[in-house]
Amino acid sequence: MFEPAEVGSKVGKKEYAERVDDLRIELINAQYDLRLADFSVLVLVAGDDRIAVNESVDLLQSWMDARFINTCVFGRPSDEERERPRFWRYWRSLPPHGRIGLFLGGWAMNTLAERLRGNIGKARFEDRIRHERSFEQSLAVNGTLILKYWLHLPPDRSGKRLADYHDTPAWKWRLQEIDRDIYKKHERFVKHSAHYIRETDGPGSQWNIIESTDARYRNLALCESLLGALRKRLDRMPAQAVTRDHSPAFSVGGDVLGSVDLDSSLSYEEYKARQKELQDRLGRLVVTAREAGQSTVLLFEGWDAAGKGGVIRRLTRSMAACDYRVVPVLAPTDEELAHHYLWRFWRQLPRAGNMLIFDRSWYGRVLVERVEGFASEEEWSRAYGELNDFEEQLLDHGIPVVKFWLHIDQDEQLRRFRARETTPYKKYKITDEDYRNRGKWGAYNEAVNEMVARTSTEYAPWHLVPANDKRYARIAVMEQVCESLEKILEKRSIE
Amino acid sequence: MFEPAEVGSKVGKKEYAERVDDLRIELINAQYDLRLADFSVLVLVAGDDRIAVNESVDLLQSWMDARFINTCVFGRPSDEERERPRFWRYWRSLPPHGRIGLFLGGWAMNTLAERLRGNIGKARFEDRIRHERSFEQSLAVNGTLILKYWLHLPPDRSGKRLADYHDTPAWKWRLQEIDRDIYKKHERFVKHSAHYIRETDGPGSQWNIIESTDARYRNLALCESLLGALRKRLDRMPAQAVTRDHSPAFSVGGDVLGSVDLDSSLSYEEYKARQKELQDRLGRLVVTAREAGQSTVLLFEGWDAAGKGGVIRRLTRSMAACDYRVVPVLAPTDEELAHHYLWRFWRQLPRAGNMLIFDRSWYGRVLVERVEGFASEEEWSRAYGELNDFEEQLLDHGIPVVKFWLHIDQDEQLRRFRARETTPYKKYKITDEDYRNRGKWGAYNEAVNEMVARTSTEYAPWHLVPANDKRYARIAVMEQVCESLEKILEKRSIE
Repeated sequence: MFEPAEVGSKVGKKEYAERVDDLRIELINAQYDLRLADFSVLVLVAGDDRIAVNESVDLLQSWMDARFINTCVFGRPSDEERERPRFWRYWRSLPPHGRIGLFLGGWAMNTLAERLRGNIGKARFEDRIRHERSFEQSLAVNGTLILKYWLHLPPDRSGKRLADYHDTPAWKWRLQEIDRDIYKKHERFVKHSAHYIRETDGPGSQWNIIESTDARYRNLALCESLLGALRKRLDRMPAQAVTRDHSPAFSVGGDVLGSVDLDSSLSYEEYKARQKELQDRLGRLVVTAREAGQSTVLLFEGWDAAGKGGVIRRLTRSMAACDYRVVPVLAPTDEELAHHYLWRFWRQLPRAGNMLIFDRSWYGRVLVERVEGFASEEEWSRAYGELNDFEEQLLDHGIPVVKFWLHIDQDEQLRRFRARETTPYKKYKITDEDYRNRGKWGAYNEAVNEMVARTSTEYAPWHLVPANDKRYARIAVMEQVCESLEKILEKRSIE
Repeated sequence: MFEPAEVGSKVGKKEYAERVDDLRIELINAQYDLRLADFSVLVLVAGDDRIAVNESVDLLQSWMDARFINTCVFGRPSDEERERPRFWRYWRSLPPHGRIGLFLGGWAMNTLAERLRGNIGKARFEDRIRHERSFEQSLAVNGTLILKYWLHLPPDRSGKRLADYHDTPAWKWRLQEIDRDIYKKHERFVKHSAHYIRETDGPGSQWNIIESTDARYRNLALCESLLGALRKRLDRMPAQAVTRDHSPAFSVGGDVLGSVDLDSSLSYEEYKARQKELQDRLGRLVVTAREAGQSTVLLFEGWDAAGKGGVIRRLTRSMAACDYRVVPVLAPTDEELAHHYLWRFWRQLPRAGNMLIFDRSWYGRVLVERVEGFASEEEWSRAYGELNDFEEQLLDHGIPVVKFWLHIDQDEQLRRFRARETTPYKKYKITDEDYRNRGKWGAYNEAVNEMVARTSTEYAPWHLVPANDKRYARIAVMEQVCESLEKILEKRSIE
C-alpha cells in the first residue's frame, strides 16, 4: 500500500519558494469561489506521521483564510455524544455549503487508535470500517467534496522524527499520548492503516497518500492536490462518477395502501375503555424506558388531515413533559439548507431515556420532494437506501424507530377539509395548497406505496393505520406504541 | 403574596363552553400573526400545583398549533451543560423570533426545587435569584416577550390533589419524585416561592399568579392573559416600559487609545529569542489547563489590518489542535439573527479544558453596530452592561475572558492596505469597504475609547497592544496570554 509513497520525494528550497506564491494565490481564490458554491468540502487529514498532520493544519490555516475553515478534532466523546449513535458528533460538526471542514484524523484516526490500543478487536474494526465507508459515501453522493489525505512516514524514520521534535519548544507540548504511541508502535499501526485505507477507498472518497518525510514536498503535494480537486469541482468539470447502485432489492408492484381496511372503527364506549387502559400501560412503559435509559423514535406520516397531530397529543398526554419531545418537520432554516438533507434530523436526536416524536419526517425526501420535484429522480431513488441506513444506525445504537402511516381515503379527506373550513379554530389548518395536493393523490399514492415497500425493513417496518375513524386510529397507534415499547424493553432486559 | 389568589375562583361549565371557542380562535390567530413578528415569546409555566402545570402544557399544545411551540423541560444537566455557565442550557433552548418557547418550570423551578431539597442554602438561593432576574431582564430589554405564570393551590388542597390524581391512569405515571415532594412539603415550598416570586417580579418579566384549584378557571385565566399580552405586543400598543438604567458608572472622557505608545518595536533577533521561550511556556500552560479542565476565552478586536489573524496563528502554533478553537465572528446566519444578539456567542462556549479564541467578538455591538447604525443608541448604550454581565457569568463559572485591542495608527493602516493590494494572496483581504471604514476613523475611535472605558472591568480588563510593529504585537500578546493563564491556574490551584 504505502510502498509507492516511500521513494524519498523531496523538493529543494528554491523550487519550493518559486511554487509557493502562486499556490497560495490559487488556493485563496478557490476558497473565495467556494463561498458561493452549493456544496461543502470535507478535508480529512490523517496519517501515521502525527507531527506532519498537525503541521499541515497550521499550513492550511495560514495559507488559506482561516476564518472560513472549520477545524475539528474529536477527542473523548462527551456524555451527550455517547448517548447518540457514533456518527452524531461528526454530523454536528459538518461544514455548511461554501465552507471547508478540516477534520484532524476524524473517524479514521479514532478507529485506528482504538484498534492500536486493542480497545476494539478485528470484528469490531471491520464493522466500523463498513459504517465509515457508508457514511462517507452518503456524504459524497449528496454533494460533499471529500478529500482524504494520509501522511505517511517510512518506518525507519519514525523514531528519529519523535526524538527531533521532542526538543522543539513549539512542539513538545503538542504531542498527545496517542501520537507518541503511534510513533513507537509504528509498524503495527501502519499495518492496520494499510488495511483501513484499502477498505475505505472508494469513488467520491479516495485516499491520497503523501510521503511526509520532507516538509516542502509534503506541503506542495497536499496543497496542490487540494487545489486541483477544489478547482475541478468548482469548474464543474466532469468529476469522477459518484453514483451508488440503487437498483431495487425487490420489485415494487402492488398497492399496499389499497389493502388497508378503511372501514375499521370503534364505538365511543369501546374507545374510552381502551384509552384508559392504554394510557396506564403507556405511562408505565415510558417511565420504565426513562429509568432504563432507553430512547425511542416515533415517526408519523400520512395524508393531509389524516389526524397526525391528534394522535400525537393522545400519546403525549400519558407522558411527563420531560420524557418526550415532539419535532414538527417544517421548512428548513438556512443553516439546515446548507447541509446534507439528513443533518437536520441528526441534530434533533434524543438523549438517553427520551422519546422523540416526529410529526412528518425524513420521508419527505421520497414523498413531497419526489412528487413536487424538489429532489431529482436520482436523489429520491437513492434516498431509500440512505433512510434505511440512517434507521439502522439508530437501531445499532439501541434507538429503535417506530413508523406510522395514517391512511384515509379521498372522500374522508374532503369531508375533513370542509369541516376545518367551518370550525373557526381549525380554519388556519387549511389552505389552497391542501386542495392542490389533492389533485396529486395518484402521484402521492404511488410514492407512498414505493416508500412502504422499500423502507419496511425488518428492524423498522411501517405500520399502516386505517384512520378514517379517528377513534380507531388513536387506539391502534397507542396499542402499537405500547407493543413496540414492550418488545424493546424486553429485548433490552435480556441483553 | 398568594392570598389574593386564594379566593376559590370558579367558572361554571356553561360559561366555560361559551368562552372557549372564541378564545381558541383568537389564540390561533395571534399565534399565526406572531410567526411574522420580529420577537420571540417565552412562556414560563411554574407553580406549586405540579399537576396543573403539566395539564396547562397539554392545554396550550392542543389549543394552539403545537408545531410552533417549542416545549422545554430542564432535568438533570448533561456533562456538556455542567461544563458551561448555568444559563447555557437555557440559552440553547430559547425560541427564535416568531415562535413560542414553553418552558416548564425553567430556571425558577430548578432553583426552588434545589432550595426545597436543601441542596442550596439561603445565600446561594439569593445569588441565583439575582442572576435569574438579570437574565430575564436582558432577554426582555432585547425584545423577548416574557410571560410567567405561577399556578398556585391553596395549602389545604394539596394533600387531596395528590391523592386524587394518583389514581388517574393518565396521571399516575407523569408525576416525578420532586412533584410529589412539593405537594407533601407544600407549606415550606410556598414560603420559598413567595420570596422568589417577589424578587423576580420586574418590568418586562412579571409573574401572573393563578389559583389552580378549578381547572376551568385556571385554563381561562392562563389563556386569556397569554392572549392579551401577545395581542398587545403584536398590535404594538405602548407596552409597559421596559428599560434599564444605563447611566454611566463613571464619566468617559479622555483618549485611552491616544496613550498607547505606537513606537514600541522589537528587532528580529529579539523576536526570535522571545518567541521560542514563549512558545514553550504557552505550550506547557495549555496542557496544564487541559489537564485541570480549565477553559479560557481569548478575544481579539482591533482596527482593520491590525494583524489579528497573524497574532492568533502565532498563538495556536504552540497548541495541539484539540486544545483550542478559533471562532471568526462573521455575518450571522438566519437562525442567529432570529435570536438575542448574544445567543450566537453562547452557542460557541467551550467544553472544560478548552481555549476558545474569538477573532472579533460580541463587542461588535458597541463598535461596528454602533458606528454603522445597525444598533440604536438605546441598544448599544445598554450593551456595555450586558457584555459585562456576560463576561461575569463566564468568570463565575470559572472561565476567564482575556481581551485584546490591537492598535495601529491611520498611516500604518494605509501602508498595510497598499501592501495587501500588491501581495497577490492578500489581495482578497482588502475591499472598498475597508477604505470607506477609514473615513469613519474618528467615530470608531470614540467608540473604542468608550468601550475600553466601560468594559474594562476588574475581572476582564482590556489589554491595549501597540501593533504598528507586528513582531512587538505578537510577543506582547503571547506574553500577556501566558501571564493571564499563569494567574488563572495559580488561583485555581489555591482554591
